Amino acid sequence: MLKLTMLGSGGSIPLPDRYLSSGLIEYKGRKILVDAGEGTQVSMRSINSGFKDLDVICITHLHGDHVIGLQGMLGTTSNSGRTKPITIIGPTGLKDVLAGFRLISPYLNYEVNVIEDPTEPVVINNDDIHGDLIIETLPVEHTRPCLGYRFNISRQPKFDVEKAKANHVPQAAWKSLQQGQEVMLDGVTYTKDMVLGEERKGLSISYITDTLPIDTIPNFVQDSDLFVCCANYGDSADKKKADKNKHMTFHDAATLAKEGNVHRLLLTHFSQAMRHPEEYVENAREVFPHTWINQDHLQVELNFDQEPVLDLSLVKEPYLCNQEG
Amino acid sequence: MLKLTMLGSGGSIPLPDRYLSSGLIEYKGRKILVDAGEGTQVSMRSINSGFKDLDVICITHLHGDHVIGLQGMLGTTSNSGRTKPITIIGPTGLKDVLAGFRLISPYLNYEVNVIEDPTEPVVINNDDIHGDLIIETLPVEHTRPCLGYRFNISRQPKFDVEKAKANHVPQAAWKSLQQGQEVMLDGVTYTKDMVLGEERKGLSISYITDTLPIDTIPNFVQDSDLFVCCANYGDSADKKKADKNKHMTFHDAATLAKEGNVHRLLLTHFSQAMRHPEEYVENAREVFPHTWINQDHLQVELNFDQEPVLDLSLVKEPYLCNQEG
Repeated sequence: MLKLTMLGSGGSIPLPDRYLSSGLIEYKGRKILVDAGEGTQVSMRSINSGFKDLDVICITHLHGDHVIGLQGMLGTTSNSGRTKPITIIGPTGLKDVLAGFRLISPYLNYEVNVIEDPTEPVVINNDDIHGDLIIETLPVEHTRPCLGYRFNISRQPKFDVEKAKANHVPQAAWKSLQQGQEVMLDGVTYTKDMVLGEERKGLSISYITDTLPIDTIPNFVQDSDLFVCCANYGDSADKKKADKNKHMTFHDAATLAKEGNVHRLLLTHFSQAMRHPEEYVENAREVFPHTWINQDHLQVELNFDQEPVLDLSLVKEPYLCNQEG
Repeated sequence: MLKLTMLGSGGSIPLPDRYLSSGLIEYKGRKILVDAGEGTQVSMRSINSGFKDLDVICITHLHGDHVIGLQGMLGTTSNSGRTKPITIIGPTGLKDVLAGFRLISPYLNYEVNVIEDPTEPVVINNDDIHGDLIIETLPVEHTRPCLGYRFNISRQPKFDVEKAKANHVPQAAWKSLQQGQEVMLDGVTYTKDMVLGEERKGLSISYITDTLPIDTIPNFVQDSDLFVCCANYGDSADKKKADKNKHMTFHDAATLAKEGNVHRLLLTHFSQAMRHPEEYVENAREVFPHTWINQDHLQVELNFDQEPVLDLSLVKEPYLCNQEG
């Protein structure tokens, strides 16, 4: 299972009743954080999520509401007893910002690997993860260099007994081949494609914030199980303001979701002036019906071959609006 | 009136139910902030305190729980419409840390004046403040260079009519002399000491965190109306831990208050492990009876010739313990 917990839903400024937009992805006991504004570690603590298993932090861009919380997050994670390295991915400039942060937190119990502006997918695969998690990035269009992210979980094909027998693969080799290893027995080499069935669809979460609704996004988010997208303004009358600030309206984000043929859209990163984003949900649903409105601590569970499931049990004040989009 | 609002009470890590220790001093419409950990701006917003009048920020030291919130604070203050300069005081190294922060917030609507490790008192006196506010600093003993602060409000002596008459000061000069100006009339120079009475006691708040209870502190805080002091550990059995981390127990802080002959002691900067600091209040009061225990948004009002007044009206969950110390 792949789980996303939204640690916050706001843009620009942390508010007493709304944390800054940030997403925590959990997969097989490991954690990946997308963005860390001021207070993200507090939100994480408030849902009793530990810090020790935080493997990867993806920073979309170097505006304060997405990165100021990173330094406290690194310190708290160090205090949590983590000793394994942490990978931090982000746009060019991240290393300089981190160097500044490290003046305050010079001593961490683990190594920090920084990947600026990756040109190839980042594969997260260690001893504890059976099944790769692949992180792809897309440069998007904001007032500072900004990256969109896509997280893909591959799925192991089924073992095909008939195929194995047809290929005369000895039973002694089956287990290793199923695990993806090549096997040599009595001078004959056996490969996994001799025993495994067809490729199966994995799971994917796309996460885009903050940007104009540029035309490379639909292809990047194509067929995602969940598309988390910034949508500062619910009212389409704010389109000019959105364009000026290089942000999006609900209508913009829904249009990208439709063009990208995603399964579910989760809107987030709401303007501080928009106290009740749920009031504007129809502006998105008239374009893309399967739209959810984010709220701090909303969770989505993703399972193979199933529709994404919304979980509001951790949300303090559930929405009045119908979330059955 | 001089007012102190404690924006938080915790040490080390911001918690969902406890902001990091920070003090907001207000005097004649101007604001002075002492320390800005992660979330301090959120706490300030939660009591509806504006940011535009933030004139001075005093940083005790460059540990994350005292300085990480500074960058968000500066950004939010810029968005508040402030254009007047801000003065930031702190230990050596502050300029480098600020340079790192400015990578994230390069554009502010005002000038930032940084005073590292001041060797003389800083006088805050502009057109809007009639009556100087003088900030004194004391190097204290922590794991990083750290400054204690003392805020002094001077008080204008009373106008002494009998003295003015005895000195043959013409009535036309009285008003200017009362305002501290020198006056020349008919070739004679008149000075304020010819019309003003004796010096009167002003108001002072001393603010010390984080440090060992070193022997220069009592003299520095001498006769303060209010002494805000860090006290990580309520239980005196934690004295060794306090020494190791260069912090204090309640007993340590109370001893400094007694030796410094202050009027009121306010303990703050509580260890995250100490959920109910009020339970240990007697460990301080047996040494210094006039001890209060901090809680987020506790306020103290200071008026000339009056005892400091505790105000808990903004505190969400008032203490169970008797605060009549």
